[in-house]
Amino acid sequence: MLHKIINLTVRDVRFPTSLEQHGSDAMHTDPDYSAAYVLLHTDCGLTGFGLTFTLGKGTEIVVCAVEALAPLVIGKTLEEIVSDFRGFYRLLTSDGQMRWLGPEKGVIQLATAAVLNAVWDLWARAEGKPLWKLLADMDPKQIVSCIDFRYITDVLTEEEALDLLLKAQEGKQQREDQMLREGYPAYTTSCAWLGYPDQQLKQLCTDALKTGWSRFKVKVGADLEDDIRRCRLIREMIGPNNTLMIDANQRWDVADAISWVRSLAEFKPLWIEEPTSPDDILGHAAISKALAPLGIGVATGEQCHNRVMFKQFLQASALQFVQIDSCRLGSVNENLAVLLMAHKFKVPVCPHAGGVGLCELVQHLILFDYICVSADLSNRMCEYVDHLHEHFTCPVVIRDAHYIPPKAAGYSCEMLEASVQRHRYPDGDVWKSLHMKK
Amino acid sequence: MLHKIINLTVRDVRFPTSLEQHGSDAMHTDPDYSAAYVLLHTDCGLTGFGLTFTLGKGTEIVVCAVEALAPLVIGKTLEEIVSDFRGFYRLLTSDGQMRWLGPEKGVIQLATAAVLNAVWDLWARAEGKPLWKLLADMDPKQIVSCIDFRYITDVLTEEEALDLLLKAQEGKQQREDQMLREGYPAYTTSCAWLGYPDQQLKQLCTDALKTGWSRFKVKVGADLEDDIRRCRLIREMIGPNNTLMIDANQRWDVADAISWVRSLAEFKPLWIEEPTSPDDILGHAAISKALAPLGIGVATGEQCHNRVMFKQFLQASALQFVQIDSCRLGSVNENLAVLLMAHKFKVPVCPHAGGVGLCELVQHLILFDYICVSADLSNRMCEYVDHLHEHFTCPVVIRDAHYIPPKAAGYSCEMLEASVQRHRYPDGDVWKSLHMKK
Repeated sequence: MLHKIINLTVRDVRFPTSLEQHGSDAMHTDPDYSAAYVLLHTDCGLTGFGLTFTLGKGTEIVVCAVEALAPLVIGKTLEEIVSDFRGFYRLLTSDGQMRWLGPEKGVIQLATAAVLNAVWDLWARAEGKPLWKLLADMDPKQIVSCIDFRYITDVLTEEEALDLLLKAQEGKQQREDQMLREGYPAYTTSCAWLGYPDQQLKQLCTDALKTGWSRFKVKVGADLEDDIRRCRLIREMIGPNNTLMIDANQRWDVADAISWVRSLAEFKPLWIEEPTSPDDILGHAAISKALAPLGIGVATGEQCHNRVMFKQFLQASALQFVQIDSCRLGSVNENLAVLLMAHKFKVPVCPHAGGVGLCELVQHLILFDYICVSADLSNRMCEYVDHLHEHFTCPVVIRDAHYIPPKAAGYSCEMLEASVQRHRYPDGDVWKSLHMKK
Repeated sequence: MLHKIINLTVRDVRFPTSLEQHGSDAMHTDPDYSAAYVLLHTDCGLTGFGLTFTLGKGTEIVVCAVEALAPLVIGKTLEEIVSDFRGFYRLLTSDGQMRWLGPEKGVIQLATAAVLNAVWDLWARAEGKPLWKLLADMDPKQIVSCIDFRYITDVLTEEEALDLLLKAQEGKQQREDQMLREGYPAYTTSCAWLGYPDQQLKQLCTDALKTGWSRFKVKVGADLEDDIRRCRLIREMIGPNNTLMIDANQRWDVADAISWVRSLAEFKPLWIEEPTSPDDILGHAAISKALAPLGIGVATGEQCHNRVMFKQFLQASALQFVQIDSCRLGSVNENLAVLLMAHKFKVPVCPHAGGVGLCELVQHLILFDYICVSADLSNRMCEYVDHLHEHFTCPVVIRDAHYIPPKAAGYSCEMLEASVQRHRYPDGDVWKSLHMKK
């Protein structure tokens, strides 16, 4: 079967998370977790599901961008695409007229991710495997054939990438078995959103400790006194041996970042996440250098838009933790490039997740990273946020603070049709009733 | 009068330039020069006109993004906006939900530029001055109040910016008089688009020399033998004392860029423009370092999306010529930040222009730069491309290869209504008849 893609549909799906301050941080005070949700329909009846994550307003712009990319996809067969996936990636990202809108950044890259996530989902479904297993079983040559090495050959060539993958073949089966048995370690961000009152934070922390969580992230950056109080509270709750991370969501300039984090150093955070502009490689490098003597690393990546940026963050020693994102980068293809570069630089990958669908998607990438690339779990963990999983047909499974590898074929981001209908913006029931209340 | 903005309209205007290979380069082989064209309607009858430049497909996405920004503008008065222009800039670029789509990059930043260009046009019209004159007459304190210094204070603080502007007050009137008399030096890109045959190139070059042009840019990067032939041809035509620049439009990886440009060094180009990915600061730094002994500089910026990127290009000595763009950066506000940073680093600014409307817009910025910031013309010139000016109510005036300062009030990007109607996509007459031919 050729799996010819005969149509693409895209929907604007939004969840009114801002009503309860879920997801609130220093820069995004009222997010409504949302998605541009893509369906690829084939002539054989199989459907590919993909999405990119957004924060509410503006999702319609990404939907518009997906529609602009649709003619490049419709009419192609899955076999045609995956037999030259690098070429197809470049077709989408390097269209002579549309690349002006990026290139490979912002809205057009988010749309590219949504479309390609659906292609990967379709491929995994066609093979009857969960995506992580499709990747783990793939010949290293085919893996590198999916990567566009343009602009990164000064750091990683195709030959080097192949070599890294071949070297990591050793022990692959044991690592896969281990993952199926134990799962991949996770940390939680659900306890300490910026908008949560202390009492709620304490309760959530107590509950999380009981269910086996040992790694906790706190949002900081709006008010230093508040941050000190909240960090002290959490550190007291979790004790000295559990792990604390702090996340400023780009709130500071370089000098502010250094002095603010110094004031929080006594709480021994493993990392400061997004201390400044996501574009500021040299700024992150300066912050990394200043904080290294305190034993605090810099983590960033959820708004790092392509492999060229990650390449430089690694070259400049500007981060100590690489936070890949399943919807910001150009889907699996570009994430593969980043995983391999991070491995070359020996920097651990700790994916960004949360939002809506990000946990479902990124678990596949980090499982592949452990099984086929890094073969290492030290200082590695995948973000987990306990929101909106109930809207997916195959929601993530967490056991003892570990992601348990999904078994269903695909990339795990198919939503329940009833959820999609209710949350369609602006005409789903949820939004109609919210607008009536106003 | 308060000039309350009561409505915003935005149009998708496209010119079928690809039919004759105008604007063709190594990465953009068939551009249809286009614009998202914004009109701000006020209660007093005055209209502000703004645009951002695009290459055809995808303009509808930018239009959609402008519509998403419109609620942040409608209902405000001009006085309210300009009395806290920094705050208004941040309102548009840092909306808690929409900033996820950038931040400050790609489609959403192009849309921000279109909207803010219209605000600046409105302001200049309200003051009855061309934009460059509005800026030149402005108190330095008010100028810095338009700039968002977030993320650049490690290189330029508000106090330093003010200091730079105050120092440059000396001789301001003489420079303004000089500009009105002589105009600002320009170079031409019209002679050597990649898709032009040699004969056409020769003819255009001959004509240009006759009308006083002495600085010429050639597109390169698709085929080395072609490039050598074309560069030799142009260098022979213009002689050893005129200036040649070459432009690869991001075609190469770092190592390729260095070796390719070495092969063209004999033709003594002043700069190589966009040798690699516009995001690759460290790559540009490596290329700059390798080419410095040959006396060839690196120029980039037309796809540099914000002040944070330009800051790093300057910090890393990654460019020797700053090419600001009037529609890629966040309008005048962000361009002011870049002009001041470039001045601090003593790097000349040579604006990107061409497309549709870019010459009309950017001439104002470079006039301001000379009169109020750099006070220097050495190694400085503004790009000029001889296309589509006939569609504007106040087209640029070039005399002896110099931009003559515009006299009409505003920011010079109002289009003739008849042109807009004919080129509206997809329902203007030009597009209807092209679609009928297919």
